[in-house]
Amino acid sequence: MPQVTAYACDDETTHFHPLTITVREPGPTEVLFDVKYAGICHSDIHTARSEWRQATYPLVPGHEIAGIVTKIGSQVTKFAVGDKIGVGCMVDSCRVCGYCKDGTEQFCDGPGGTLWTYGPDRNGAPTAGGYAKAFTVDQDFGLHIPEAIDFSAAAPLMCAGITTYSPLHHWGAGPGKKVAIVGLGGLGHVAVQIAAAMGAEVSVISRTLAKQDDGLRLGASHYYAMSEPGTASALRGSFDLILTTVSGSTDLDPIIGMLTVGGVLVDVGLPEHASTLHMSGLTHGARILAGSLIGGIAETQEMLDFCADHDIAPIVEVIGGEDITAAYDKVVASKVRYRYVIDTSTF
Amino acid sequence: MPQVTAYACDDETTHFHPLTITVREPGPTEVLFDVKYAGICHSDIHTARSEWRQATYPLVPGHEIAGIVTKIGSQVTKFAVGDKIGVGCMVDSCRVCGYCKDGTEQFCDGPGGTLWTYGPDRNGAPTAGGYAKAFTVDQDFGLHIPEAIDFSAAAPLMCAGITTYSPLHHWGAGPGKKVAIVGLGGLGHVAVQIAAAMGAEVSVISRTLAKQDDGLRLGASHYYAMSEPGTASALRGSFDLILTTVSGSTDLDPIIGMLTVGGVLVDVGLPEHASTLHMSGLTHGARILAGSLIGGIAETQEMLDFCADHDIAPIVEVIGGEDITAAYDKVVASKVRYRYVIDTSTF
Repeated sequence: MPQVTAYACDDETTHFHPLTITVREPGPTEVLFDVKYAGICHSDIHTARSEWRQATYPLVPGHEIAGIVTKIGSQVTKFAVGDKIGVGCMVDSCRVCGYCKDGTEQFCDGPGGTLWTYGPDRNGAPTAGGYAKAFTVDQDFGLHIPEAIDFSAAAPLMCAGITTYSPLHHWGAGPGKKVAIVGLGGLGHVAVQIAAAMGAEVSVISRTLAKQDDGLRLGASHYYAMSEPGTASALRGSFDLILTTVSGSTDLDPIIGMLTVGGVLVDVGLPEHASTLHMSGLTHGARILAGSLIGGIAETQEMLDFCADHDIAPIVEVIGGEDITAAYDKVVASKVRYRYVIDTSTF
Repeated sequence: MPQVTAYACDDETTHFHPLTITVREPGPTEVLFDVKYAGICHSDIHTARSEWRQATYPLVPGHEIAGIVTKIGSQVTKFAVGDKIGVGCMVDSCRVCGYCKDGTEQFCDGPGGTLWTYGPDRNGAPTAGGYAKAFTVDQDFGLHIPEAIDFSAAAPLMCAGITTYSPLHHWGAGPGKKVAIVGLGGLGHVAVQIAAAMGAEVSVISRTLAKQDDGLRLGASHYYAMSEPGTASALRGSFDLILTTVSGSTDLDPIIGMLTVGGVLVDVGLPEHASTLHMSGLTHGARILAGSLIGGIAETQEMLDFCADHDIAPIVEVIGGEDITAAYDKVVASKVRYRYVIDTSTF
């Protein structure tokens, strides 16, 4: 079994250091690949800092993974050695339940349910994520990364891309629709590009105007700052669809008030604390507050192909393994423009 | 102009007394009718007690109105003298905006917007509702009450009926769907009948089992009490659609947890205070929290015809004008089975 270098942390302080891990030989339907790039998602930080639940240490995070196939199992037909491959938040599911059959493996309710990247395996044993030199995955949970997408920039699409594409697609972002993206961070700056490519009229709603130039360059037609007095009231009833990508927003009333009649608010920011709203804001306008959780495997491939077709890519800052510890603090402080991607050749 | 007896209150104590009011002569497109029955909706109480906003007194509430046409304007074609007529929460709208054209007059955003029953008129002057011997309304905002529906029981359908029918219809209550109705009160006991007639498998979720026999008789297949330990956890992931009709439920997490993947929670209980939820409950399951506000005029007629076709009627307690004051307290104390209807022949 191959032994490779990974970056791990040992506790909630998230001080990352090299660690040698064992990667399993690919089974008959599995693929072994060299990880080239791994994105740092805010949920890696929540997990590594045990903010959602107690983590198991040492922990090797990473669910935005891009690499090159080095070895395939005897029954593998989807990939060949040398192919570019991506892995996102899921590495397996039951394959037979209704959700798996429908292509929404993230909701698998079969035996064992969805297996999450760097979550426990079928036996409950901890697994490593993408902050590592190699990774083994079942071919069905590997994605083809189109050549048109810059390889380092492809990694964040595996989570940030599908997390924003799926609700924008599901709730009808497109021509004639006014779409607002709340927050221009790792998710938001991808969402702006996707919504604009879908044909919607896109607005960004941010805390300040600091990133306005970037927002407009990425495809937004309008840029609003909540720090400016009167923004929420000026935007009342303005948007058919609002995608909130920030984790700190817990008073939903001002945002809900910006929806049209029948408008939809999707919150993918995964706020840690409870949110509050006055139901009257939804009632008077038959508005909708909806959840969305990444997207299925087929939809993830659809998203990658869509991004390739429309020249969409995350803006990334490529860092080395030794930079991960500091990068975590910068992500929390919103100092990244717009996604850190770890180059594993530095390991 | 006809002068008739109404019942009014003069302040937040909601002590009702007879008051002579003037009802306007019907204009060319208007209908004058004798009010026979008027339902007491919980929102009458919120309004009369200035719980939502300061009311204008003296106040004659009532937006669940059933009567007999006595006089019609020169251009009226929809009604003839002697017809049964119903009026609900709306008495007029702009007629030309997109919402009016689409049959959702409750969201009218044209000049003046929706005119609400016993709200201000186009000039801002106060108007009287259905706790009165007569009422004048434009023919387009009058509904035909089918003969098959008991006349006194028809009144509450004008609000309680459409408020529950519209979201059940919109969100697909029907064969193969598991629908839960939270609260078996004025709205809930109608919602159970409608959802069952639509073909759904209906459950009632109540505080206690006190009304279980009624719930099952009205069409529910299952009846659950939140007072029983473990109810919320036992029902996790159970319902495709949940309609909450209670106004006091502000912690939404337990109810959201009862939804299936993709399930929908509609809250028509108009809670006075802010509700709280952890967004993760919506995220992990792509669930939906939706608002719904009565229904349009055409949909209200559709609801009345549906109720006639399926032998659906509210269970009412008919009371006199002198009983209104005490009835308000009993509604708040959940002591009505299941809707008070005022018989205006007692005025």
